[in-house]
Amino acid sequence: MASASQTSSATAASTSASSSDLDLDSIYAFAVQLTKDAGQRLLDGAKARMAGGGVIDTLEKDSSVDLVTQADEDVEAFVKKEITARYPTHGFLGEESYSKGASRDYLVGGGPTWIVDPLDGTVNYTHLFAMYCVSIGFVVDGKPVIGVIYAPMLNQLFSACKGKGAFLNESIPLPLQQNPVVPPLPANAPSGCIFSCEWGKDRRDFAGGNLSRKVESFVTMATERQGKNGLGGMVHGVRSLGSAAMDLAYTAAGSFDIWWEGGCWEWDVAAGFAILEEAGGLVTTANPPESKVGDYSDVAVEDAHLGGRLYLAIRPAGASADGAETARQAQERVAREVWKRVASLDYTRPGV
Amino acid sequence: MASASQTSSATAASTSASSSDLDLDSIYAFAVQLTKDAGQRLLDGAKARMAGGGVIDTLEKDSSVDLVTQADEDVEAFVKKEITARYPTHGFLGEESYSKGASRDYLVGGGPTWIVDPLDGTVNYTHLFAMYCVSIGFVVDGKPVIGVIYAPMLNQLFSACKGKGAFLNESIPLPLQQNPVVPPLPANAPSGCIFSCEWGKDRRDFAGGNLSRKVESFVTMATERQGKNGLGGMVHGVRSLGSAAMDLAYTAAGSFDIWWEGGCWEWDVAAGFAILEEAGGLVTTANPPESKVGDYSDVAVEDAHLGGRLYLAIRPAGASADGAETARQAQERVAREVWKRVASLDYTRPGV
Repeated sequence: MASASQTSSATAASTSASSSDLDLDSIYAFAVQLTKDAGQRLLDGAKARMAGGGVIDTLEKDSSVDLVTQADEDVEAFVKKEITARYPTHGFLGEESYSKGASRDYLVGGGPTWIVDPLDGTVNYTHLFAMYCVSIGFVVDGKPVIGVIYAPMLNQLFSACKGKGAFLNESIPLPLQQNPVVPPLPANAPSGCIFSCEWGKDRRDFAGGNLSRKVESFVTMATERQGKNGLGGMVHGVRSLGSAAMDLAYTAAGSFDIWWEGGCWEWDVAAGFAILEEAGGLVTTANPPESKVGDYSDVAVEDAHLGGRLYLAIRPAGASADGAETARQAQERVAREVWKRVASLDYTRPGV
Repeated sequence: MASASQTSSATAASTSASSSDLDLDSIYAFAVQLTKDAGQRLLDGAKARMAGGGVIDTLEKDSSVDLVTQADEDVEAFVKKEITARYPTHGFLGEESYSKGASRDYLVGGGPTWIVDPLDGTVNYTHLFAMYCVSIGFVVDGKPVIGVIYAPMLNQLFSACKGKGAFLNESIPLPLQQNPVVPPLPANAPSGCIFSCEWGKDRRDFAGGNLSRKVESFVTMATERQGKNGLGGMVHGVRSLGSAAMDLAYTAAGSFDIWWEGGCWEWDVAAGFAILEEAGGLVTTANPPESKVGDYSDVAVEDAHLGGRLYLAIRPAGASADGAETARQAQERVAREVWKRVASLDYTRPGV
């Protein structure tokens, strides 16, 4: 087994620091290089398998579809070692370390903290499907300020630092579509939108279970407008990639318009949130507000809590052509339209 | 508008020719270069939009989720011109030409025929999501013998010629995983499998409709084993990319284990079938045989008909480690396991 640290606390950095006290430029440059190096290790493993390098070593975690590979553990150990050497006072929260810890409490404190998924999309990696990545986020005061997501088999690196823009491969601004302004969200959204969602690991078969509620929501989003009692969303397409980090990267890129998901952990989303928000996207909660069923027109659309496990992301948007609707107003409109069509998911956690 | 030809007949090549009469080597080299050139045109269009080159021009075809862009038409016109110049006696069937024709009859005759989708994944292309491609197949006696699929934004080119192997980027053999033999299919499949499927364009809301039957099938494939009256498939993952050609390419690569779909046309699948079959995969019909509901153990698994519109593909596989099951036997076993779990879809066409 790998020598991944058993330390699952991210509270080492107990001293609160605002991002203005930190040298974000050099932290960002370090994060980008570290993510590239980690991704190269994943790619080396994939190439070895392509060249006849043996069967991949997988272990099941909570279920037969929740896997960990030697690659997850080796890459997390590498990333943690590099971060600890360079920034010994910073906190560290990694998926594999956390999984081995006893506590499932919410672990991100106020201090500067690295949140790392060494391999998001593990099932894809074991099948050599290219939608896997390294995801490294840097959080201050509980807010993601730097994010880097690297899919080495696709040669796609998404990155952002607060106030410095979001980019694909360090040169192409996000969102990708700038013609010459970012396109507005469709007036009849969710129609015209690509809807990104995942089937997830909770496959239990009972009425009111997460699988049943997810599918009911997917179907309402996909059905023709006059269907489902007039709630049919007739989205342009439904996409499932098997990686929350890649879903968020593509939402930041504007390739996906809406991402709706429950059950993610902080390492799945921290880097993605930094990139999405810097690109101009919005992220709020997946579950419809309980206060006013079916009518959310005057419910505030609040920013998501990093540890909330329930997320709805809307892509960066331009204002309407006639100026009647700002980008933020359009994003909130689309979030409310999604809430009308989705069921509440049940992903509770201790400590929240 | 583009100057795409209105000719929708692929029967120009009325003289039957077996593939042994043709210079497949030079046809293959021509097909690879042509697909690269066509993909570059798509990529140029995408890059122009990234750089502020204006809003993409889309038209709706049969529904608000069935789009055609200027790029589809321009690229098809380019491809047709090149093919006609080089191989004037060969037939040509292209998506956009066909869509403009009056007939929906089955059009692939016995002669050498090119089957072209200039842009598979049009919705992805309009959203600048990288899962779009050019798909060019070459068919003799109704059988795909050459296939090339190129996703320019991912820099992934999948190609095969009958008897000459299937490759990613002309150098990496398919399937990707060769460790040192191709892995067998899981003994408890569909568990352990990545299941690729698409929501499609038929979004009508009625019991027994294609949307309802597809979703019912997806859910049975995804649910825990003890669920759905013991039919739960507990697949490793459910993936939806929005491009049948890319789905088939990834099935040929072994990245997806199972692809199940209804409603595709010949241009969506001709190239993919050539690549999948050359890589060692199997393709049969999506719909469970009507003869013996629930027990298909002695039903023959027949190769799919190119015009059938209903497809089930199983990835290339190795024989079982103990030699008790051949690759073909394992693929047929998995096909029968899928049939147990899916509903019959209704995609009829005139002429078939």
